[in-house]
Amino acid sequence: MDLYFSPMSCALATRATLYECGAPARFVQVDAHTKRTLEGDDYWRINPMGQVPALRTDDGWLLTENPAVLQHVAASYPQACLLPEDLAGLSRVQQWLGFIGTELHKAVFVPLLDPKAGAEVKQYARDKLTLRMGLLQTHLQHQAHLVASYSVADIYLATVLNWAPYAGVDLAQWPAVQAYHQRQLQRPALARALSEEFALFQEEQTRRARAT
Amino acid sequence: MDLYFSPMSCALATRATLYECGAPARFVQVDAHTKRTLEGDDYWRINPMGQVPALRTDDGWLLTENPAVLQHVAASYPQACLLPEDLAGLSRVQQWLGFIGTELHKAVFVPLLDPKAGAEVKQYARDKLTLRMGLLQTHLQHQAHLVASYSVADIYLATVLNWAPYAGVDLAQWPAVQAYHQRQLQRPALARALSEEFALFQEEQTRRARAT
Repeated sequence: MDLYFSPMSCALATRATLYECGAPARFVQVDAHTKRTLEGDDYWRINPMGQVPALRTDDGWLLTENPAVLQHVAASYPQACLLPEDLAGLSRVQQWLGFIGTELHKAVFVPLLDPKAGAEVKQYARDKLTLRMGLLQTHLQHQAHLVASYSVADIYLATVLNWAPYAGVDLAQWPAVQAYHQRQLQRPALARALSEEFALFQEEQTRRARAT
Repeated sequence: MDLYFSPMSCALATRATLYECGAPARFVQVDAHTKRTLEGDDYWRINPMGQVPALRTDDGWLLTENPAVLQHVAASYPQACLLPEDLAGLSRVQQWLGFIGTELHKAVFVPLLDPKAGAEVKQYARDKLTLRMGLLQTHLQHQAHLVASYSVADIYLATVLNWAPYAGVDLAQWPAVQAYHQRQLQRPALARALSEEFALFQEEQTRRARAT
């Protein structure tokens, strides 16, 4: 599989999932500003939404949208047990993938992290934090994971929570969420993905600073 | 199964899916403003996010988030063939469910339909329309459905496109999308769900006007 990613984006969740699965993969870095791969390919021609992650499967077709990509990798490596096999368990993971994708990632963090979003847009996003993070706080007070066992939903949530300091969100307001995030970062696969991508992110910042 | 819904909301997709499946269900109407069921129950105590759809399964637990609910119903009634059985096909449906949920429903239509969203927020949402609807236009020019066969992704997309006139979005700008939407509305299950919920929506408007 080929994973198109930008460092520290939500594609980090797929990288961590590939590591959890022990899946061989080639990582193709996309500059989120220029929308070109580091090899110089026009990423708009690869994914017309211009977003990462995008996964080129071993059969050669392209899969996008984080919950779909995460479930695809997890289902391809069932021995890693990152997706429950029963319908009720699977549905609960899909519920959390939906919540993280729509309510946290897109409704809150995209506007807060977007330099083109104005003050009113950021406030509209920020107003959504209390209900959503409060719900997580309640849920995680007595649970180690989002569902009964570790799953791709935990990997996605930890990835989104990584952005909190850059979005001006202090996780200390929700101690159970903060403690959960700290625990997630101790998973070797996630820790490896984070440290590798953080280094690539800093390289990218340096390249950009030189180019301007 | 019990489906908590508000008329003409995205829960309409679950109603249509239940009809496609011939699934017996009880429909519990939630007033989207007061967050109470028509029987007077506090909906915040049922679903702490206050959103519909929420599905009470026959085993008694509650499932939320539209893509999870739609996949759960479709997987419970495999004979309706609303979800591909192979991993590649399933992943593609999940990709579209993700796209519709994050890029159209939450990023565009929620702010455009939200009376509390200011002009800057609505413009930020509107600016996202061209790329997203253009991508759909290209995709649907030569396809009857989002994937090879009719699926819950089509039901969800048709439900979101129902909102276009209320959001000030003229689908005529994307003729293939408009033609697709018209075709979807000819599916008996979706047509029945729409006509029933449109009547309930009008009743709700009348009740609200009387109460103020």
